[in-house]
Amino acid sequence: MSRAPDEGLEEIDRDECLRLLMGRGVGRVAVTIGAVPAVFPVNYGLLDEAVVFRTGAGTKLDAAVRHAVVAFEVDEIDTLYHEGWSVLVVGRAVEITDGPTFERAEHLPLRPWAGGARTHLVAVRAEIVTGRRIVPH
Amino acid sequence: MSRAPDEGLEEIDRDECLRLLMGRGVGRVAVTIGAVPAVFPVNYGLLDEAVVFRTGAGTKLDAAVRHAVVAFEVDEIDTLYHEGWSVLVVGRAVEITDGPTFERAEHLPLRPWAGGARTHLVAVRAEIVTGRRIVPH
Repeated sequence: MSRAPDEGLEEIDRDECLRLLMGRGVGRVAVTIGAVPAVFPVNYGLLDEAVVFRTGAGTKLDAAVRHAVVAFEVDEIDTLYHEGWSVLVVGRAVEITDGPTFERAEHLPLRPWAGGARTHLVAVRAEIVTGRRIVPH
Repeated sequence: MSRAPDEGLEEIDRDECLRLLMGRGVGRVAVTIGAVPAVFPVNYGLLDEAVVFRTGAGTKLDAAVRHAVVAFEVDEIDTLYHEGWSVLVVGRAVEITDGPTFERAEHLPLRPWAGGARTHLVAVRAEIVTGRRIVPH
């Protein structure tokens, strides 16, 4: 099932991916809602190699991430200078409800990108982390 | 299956979504690869209400989009001023191989975000278009 690497892109190793993830604040969560794919932007933080973000109770995103395997993507693309990278995290989403992890997650600088009560803390453990960077040419 | 709108977000109608799509150049394609979700950034253009982007033959993205229903997301988020919007397009991906549509698609300013030969033109017809905007508060 091996596939040739995408031409013009180089792989980024896991450590570098996690470092890049730490440097950004907005990513996109891809989920499946009733067999239809959807993508939502979220503010996020990192906690023990898990991506953590807030959702509001009763929202589409909140329903979609419940115990689902989700993809989370962060990128930085400069279209003018033709530079950029993209990091993809895939893992099961779980709600953080209590305990010391909750306390620590509560202290992440997670400003929700929309207002409103976004009280649920969701963690996506970085089970699969891959990254690609544009090769300068 | 109606659900309360997400608090702090207002819906954007289809016409406005298409207008917003015209004003950006990089979006994210969400696909499923062997039951695992993935997200790829792409440069794109609009053609007859379809999102058009290039893929390279043999790439993961190229394989994933073949006759699949994909989600395509574009956003503009200002974390400092807490403003932003997100538009989501869902539709079947088809390759544009020839004919007048191919000619026109070839003239879209589709600079691939990575170098290399990205010769396949893929269109995602905007079958479902939804958008959300942060409500100023």
